[in-house]
Amino acid sequence: MSALEDRAVAPSVTVGPIQGSRKIYLAGPDGVRVPVRRVELTSGEHFDLYDTSGPYTDNEATIDARAGLPKLRAPWIGQREPLGGAVTQLAYAKAGIVTPEMRFIAIREGVDTELVRREVAIGRAVIPANRCHPESEPMIIGKRFLVKINANIGNSAVTSSIEEEVDKMVWAIRWGADNVMDLSTGKNIHETREWILRNSPVPIGTVPIYQALEKVKGDPAKLSWDVYKDTVIEQCEQGVDYMTVHAGVLLRYVPRTAKRITGIVSRGGSIMAAWCLAHHKESFLYTHFEELCDILRTYDVTFSLGDGLRPGSIADANDEPQLAELKTLGELTHIARSRDVQVMIEGPGHVPMHKIAENVRLEEEWCGEAPFYTLGPLATDIAPAYDHITSAIGASIIAWHGTAMLCYVTPKEHLGLPNRDDVKAGVIAYKIAAHSADLAKQHPRAQARDDALSAARFEFRWTDQFNLSLDPDTARSFHDETLPAEPAKTAHFCSMCGPKFCSMKITQDVRDYAEKHGLTSVEAIEAGMAEKAEEFHRRGERLYLPIAAD
Amino acid sequence: MSALEDRAVAPSVTVGPIQGSRKIYLAGPDGVRVPVRRVELTSGEHFDLYDTSGPYTDNEATIDARAGLPKLRAPWIGQREPLGGAVTQLAYAKAGIVTPEMRFIAIREGVDTELVRREVAIGRAVIPANRCHPESEPMIIGKRFLVKINANIGNSAVTSSIEEEVDKMVWAIRWGADNVMDLSTGKNIHETREWILRNSPVPIGTVPIYQALEKVKGDPAKLSWDVYKDTVIEQCEQGVDYMTVHAGVLLRYVPRTAKRITGIVSRGGSIMAAWCLAHHKESFLYTHFEELCDILRTYDVTFSLGDGLRPGSIADANDEPQLAELKTLGELTHIARSRDVQVMIEGPGHVPMHKIAENVRLEEEWCGEAPFYTLGPLATDIAPAYDHITSAIGASIIAWHGTAMLCYVTPKEHLGLPNRDDVKAGVIAYKIAAHSADLAKQHPRAQARDDALSAARFEFRWTDQFNLSLDPDTARSFHDETLPAEPAKTAHFCSMCGPKFCSMKITQDVRDYAEKHGLTSVEAIEAGMAEKAEEFHRRGERLYLPIAAD
Repeated sequence: MSALEDRAVAPSVTVGPIQGSRKIYLAGPDGVRVPVRRVELTSGEHFDLYDTSGPYTDNEATIDARAGLPKLRAPWIGQREPLGGAVTQLAYAKAGIVTPEMRFIAIREGVDTELVRREVAIGRAVIPANRCHPESEPMIIGKRFLVKINANIGNSAVTSSIEEEVDKMVWAIRWGADNVMDLSTGKNIHETREWILRNSPVPIGTVPIYQALEKVKGDPAKLSWDVYKDTVIEQCEQGVDYMTVHAGVLLRYVPRTAKRITGIVSRGGSIMAAWCLAHHKESFLYTHFEELCDILRTYDVTFSLGDGLRPGSIADANDEPQLAELKTLGELTHIARSRDVQVMIEGPGHVPMHKIAENVRLEEEWCGEAPFYTLGPLATDIAPAYDHITSAIGASIIAWHGTAMLCYVTPKEHLGLPNRDDVKAGVIAYKIAAHSADLAKQHPRAQARDDALSAARFEFRWTDQFNLSLDPDTARSFHDETLPAEPAKTAHFCSMCGPKFCSMKITQDVRDYAEKHGLTSVEAIEAGMAEKAEEFHRRGERLYLPIAAD
Repeated sequence: MSALEDRAVAPSVTVGPIQGSRKIYLAGPDGVRVPVRRVELTSGEHFDLYDTSGPYTDNEATIDARAGLPKLRAPWIGQREPLGGAVTQLAYAKAGIVTPEMRFIAIREGVDTELVRREVAIGRAVIPANRCHPESEPMIIGKRFLVKINANIGNSAVTSSIEEEVDKMVWAIRWGADNVMDLSTGKNIHETREWILRNSPVPIGTVPIYQALEKVKGDPAKLSWDVYKDTVIEQCEQGVDYMTVHAGVLLRYVPRTAKRITGIVSRGGSIMAAWCLAHHKESFLYTHFEELCDILRTYDVTFSLGDGLRPGSIADANDEPQLAELKTLGELTHIARSRDVQVMIEGPGHVPMHKIAENVRLEEEWCGEAPFYTLGPLATDIAPAYDHITSAIGASIIAWHGTAMLCYVTPKEHLGLPNRDDVKAGVIAYKIAAHSADLAKQHPRAQARDDALSAARFEFRWTDQFNLSLDPDTARSFHDETLPAEPAKTAHFCSMCGPKFCSMKITQDVRDYAEKHGLTSVEAIEAGMAEKAEEFHRRGERLYLPIAAD
């Protein structure tokens, strides 16, 4: 960890509880302590929220970026025997062994431990947890569990610093990012990653080809298996939990992209395409795939098989090169699994709504239901600066159909590198997409939060409404804009309608009135109507008597 | 128009072309001139965009809010003979008459005039066009046409002024609102509406019960058919194009909402529920519905039959009171149509994704395919301050299934009245939803814009990418944040990846290389592979020779 000690200034990050909640830990077996954010409601009840924010939101925790986070998993990892060379959650799950990570996850998700083990064993879920990243709090990615989101950070040759990237990581998990990918391509790639890993309570992913390309001075043709392999080992040793590998970009698929509107839009995909053509050979990622599996299994690094030929525009969605690559990823999935290496499959990109479901169907069929991990997809190309929204639409739909993790898109997509505000906007948009999908999939615990928030809304418990929301700070500040006074936070109306037009207030009045007059059922209403009809009869059946005069 | 002359200060509004486009007019028969925004591309081509912004974005137009907009439709309206008392587009369409409004729309939508007439005649589309609002540019709402969006504006007792509301209307149409509803409930309701109508090139909708309630000092029990009728006539005379009427909130449905988490959340619905219970009588909107039809048909005001019992939370979606009311709206639709009055049906609200399609199916079945006009729906309740996003998700899906118009939701929903920024955020989110649905419905003209923008993106025509987008100002400013210099607008990379990692640049290099070496087809690649295999053979079949050493 000398990289951290050498640096003069440690990154400063956002700490302290999120408004209206405090961190507590749920105790389980094996010394497992699962963090949740507890919201105390003004009704006297409380509501516990799934929490990705790590010790940063714990008032009791001491944060020292230079020292890194506590090594939560170190005792578990230390006690484990390799199974035939494998230390992967997949190997243990297949052998019927329940790891502490699985117990942690079962509590976190509110499910049976056996469900966790079984889903991992058949490869329908993955637990990205490199043994060299003991700081991470275990989490699971799979369609039977809550939909997860990934936030991309990382510098480029043009902009950004280590301090900014560490701050973005902490900021992203504060708002709910389940995983973070460090996609740095600029300076100090190794050191940036070291700071991020030692301070991250969530799994960290990378795309090793980026660093490998830096090592060969940016010329794709100079890449080789050896340079790549060394880079992968370096990153495994550091603790990277999952790696994007574009091993499905085969030489013969490259010319098939020539007629696309947007060619190859994946950085890794285009690098490998350039290498294949320059050497007129099959991709070294493909030809050395088994060797790569053997490296990853000794650390328990999860494959994120990259979609180097994903569509970069609506026009290119679900086209032949995209699907040809997906099929190849399916072959590779089965190879990796046979060597006990966990696998996720990356997916598009840009897809119109009516072509989204097909992506999930084919991925499940060809890739043995390996967890699907998609970038959006964007449901239209026409809104640069709003692609967190265009893609939240596609992401919600694809997650509803079974995608297990959604890679966020920020408002800066296609235009520039995201800053802190963009990271938050992307994370919140994707929490919305993920939760909408959990609702649509009828996840047993999903709707409770909607119900609690809506009940608070209807009962004018404004503070509870804010605190149960995805972003209490912004919800409260929007309310403050028109009604900043504290009494307004308990007022039975708001600035939208004012007191006279408040439907919720009128509904309360209606309920009170109905209760008082015994009009609380359809039967009572109908009996009352009959009585009124009698009265009407007695008064001479003046049918056209204006109601107002009655 | 004395209201406008009396006022000391005329509202100031945003004028001038949207960045990168200029207004032109497409000429048609009957003196029809259809506005479009023309984007001149740096490739030498141009792209015409559907335009809702009115004369405000025309450099040649003189804008004088006090004088109002030119009365575009006055000559057409003046020449028309009533058909049996009706002056509605529905009556003319049924009689086989093609109005100038229909011709205008056919050009605007790029479809046959006969399609327009036929869809209006069967009630599957409406043209909201009060003869007292001659300033409006004709537009159509129906599932066979482009999906439309509505922006709500209007003051409340707590906040806002006439100036702000007129400015918001012009601002909303600048960014693409097809229709605007004035939902004012505060001071100067009549005068505010007058300023809006005289200056609006888009149809204007209202909810007359709001003004009626003001007239009886805010006590729902004091409402009467007479007060309501007078208000409706006043608004018809002013030129309101469509009116929300909550005539489906029947007395017997009211107690059925008692067990909901969020009761009745529609303002109009709760007002009518209060009236029904207080008087223990059926709603006067229901009992006087035919009389109401007769008023609307003499102006060609379109019904927007309100969903007073729409769900206000995920828990209440698709419940019995909601669907009971929808069925009643179906009855009313057939009554209105039989009197040649145009009808749309309002829909929810808050609905999880898996329950959205059912709403469209039932609406179409029960309401004779009258255009569905939905508020979102929000796909989750947990994100106040981001409900433009939660609802854009639901809106995209419901529009894909056939909803013809989407009522926007702004980030301030549930929290406060929208300001200018919120209005724009809501409009853009809904343009995204509407366009995503047009793509998913495979509307013949929808994808051309995506293709043009994506081609510009791939070819590094940054300015064209900005100008073809929904919001050129923001797209450009985001790009400027990291690369403000003008040469960056033609650079073959951006700040995200820098020059070395630019997939688009590498793809171009790959294409150039492949072209030069004749590797532009799978066949060529395979022939090349075979040749390499020969060479490999000659070199002694060293299978495990490291590729890097070759």
